[in-house]
Amino acid sequence: MSGSGTDRSKPVVTAAAPVIILVEPQLAENIGMAARAMANFGLTELRLVAPRDGWPSSGKGLKKGATQAASGATWVLDNARLFATAAEAIADLNMVFATTARERGQRKRVLTPAEAVPDISPRIAQGQRIGILFGRERTGLENDEISLADAILTFPVNPAFASLNLAQAVLLVGYEWHKHQTSDRVPFAAVEPELPATREGIVSLFDYLEQELDFAGFFPPNKRPIMARNLRDMLHRLAMSEQELRTLRGAFTALAQGRKRRVKPAQDDTPQGA
Amino acid sequence: MSGSGTDRSKPVVTAAAPVIILVEPQLAENIGMAARAMANFGLTELRLVAPRDGWPSSGKGLKKGATQAASGATWVLDNARLFATAAEAIADLNMVFATTARERGQRKRVLTPAEAVPDISPRIAQGQRIGILFGRERTGLENDEISLADAILTFPVNPAFASLNLAQAVLLVGYEWHKHQTSDRVPFAAVEPELPATREGIVSLFDYLEQELDFAGFFPPNKRPIMARNLRDMLHRLAMSEQELRTLRGAFTALAQGRKRRVKPAQDDTPQGA
Repeated sequence: MSGSGTDRSKPVVTAAAPVIILVEPQLAENIGMAARAMANFGLTELRLVAPRDGWPSSGKGLKKGATQAASGATWVLDNARLFATAAEAIADLNMVFATTARERGQRKRVLTPAEAVPDISPRIAQGQRIGILFGRERTGLENDEISLADAILTFPVNPAFASLNLAQAVLLVGYEWHKHQTSDRVPFAAVEPELPATREGIVSLFDYLEQELDFAGFFPPNKRPIMARNLRDMLHRLAMSEQELRTLRGAFTALAQGRKRRVKPAQDDTPQGA
Repeated sequence: MSGSGTDRSKPVVTAAAPVIILVEPQLAENIGMAARAMANFGLTELRLVAPRDGWPSSGKGLKKGATQAASGATWVLDNARLFATAAEAIADLNMVFATTARERGQRKRVLTPAEAVPDISPRIAQGQRIGILFGRERTGLENDEISLADAILTFPVNPAFASLNLAQAVLLVGYEWHKHQTSDRVPFAAVEPELPATREGIVSLFDYLEQELDFAGFFPPNKRPIMARNLRDMLHRLAMSEQELRTLRGAFTALAQGRKRRVKPAQDDTPQGA
């Protein structure tokens, strides 16, 4: 799927959206893949709390690896802000969610992304700033960090194998966010025929087909009416365009003429071969 | 999030689900991450069409790297079936979707995962076998492969940055599938109080708090009734459990007694210091 859907004529939209906060991320690839996931779904604001290996402004080290994994979502990484603690990273926000994969004993609302987004979306439209905390790759968020949050965000996964990685979790939040903002609109439309074929053309096709099938002895005695109706039903279901009608008529004609031609040469050949 | 939510006491469910077909995948990591994504959402059947670097039954090479990236979803990889062409890989299926990131000029229905799953789900419940084709990392599916499909599956992404990788695309299909099967049920429940505190305890807390605030001169003249009601409203919103009631009563008492104690020693100390 890589990049092949990107339309570079479209502006990078930076509408208000949730802030993604990665707490002590360890792997450059996860930071980069998280940025890539964000960019796919119109999230632009990334905050990093004490990345294990630092975040040099020079773009070296962890940042270099992250940029490689981001597959072009460099503006997300370039604008990422660095904080020393989760508390500092959420200080200016109005509401915070903490992602966890298991129950943590804190009495907070537990929401899925699909449940949280309809709650978050009107708040952000009002100007509230909402952040989502994601924990360390191996150990997640600490209980004191979860305690900073208004609610828990978790994912409807298979209890026997609940192992989303960091970037996958960010992806699912971004996906539900963007789906809600765009009403699940696909990025391109189905190919629709410019015009459905005229009914005259369709009926003419039916007549031609049935005439050729009569000629070929296709219909068993007394079955013609029901079988012809079944064929018409099938062909109606195609909802053909004019172009498709011409293609199909041409195919039927080729079958019929080809058969006639195949039959004719054989007859013609008989005297020669005899 | 890694693995921390997996409950090993839960059986690995292998209910009927869509078949994931990766056409000529190149990178071991993507195959492994796709398997991991599948396992998170209860998908178990993976088919590989001509992986670039082969798929040795010995578990070496591409398969070794995929297993490392699968983070424990080895049963998905171990049961993966190998095919030479996409046509062979879909031969036994009843319905096929082709994922594409852009319009391909073929007149087929275009659905998002959220739209496709409610269509797929009852078919699978009836016993139909449904597969989803995913293309090569760089170039996607070829037009002739898309032509094998009944419908197009695509993702509601940001048109200015549409760059889901292979495993991310598999993840979103699995996510919507599992969400639909489980009605978006979270894998753990919110922590609910065993019992809300009795009303007697709550009213006693209110009375105690207001008495101490009276003692401390907190209420401005004539404002006591409205301010007391506002405090009661706030505390009611907590929907306290018995335990939380005890904690809060203890905290209020400590504040009041601590203040009294701080005041008292200072008075007691005066004669000593004088």
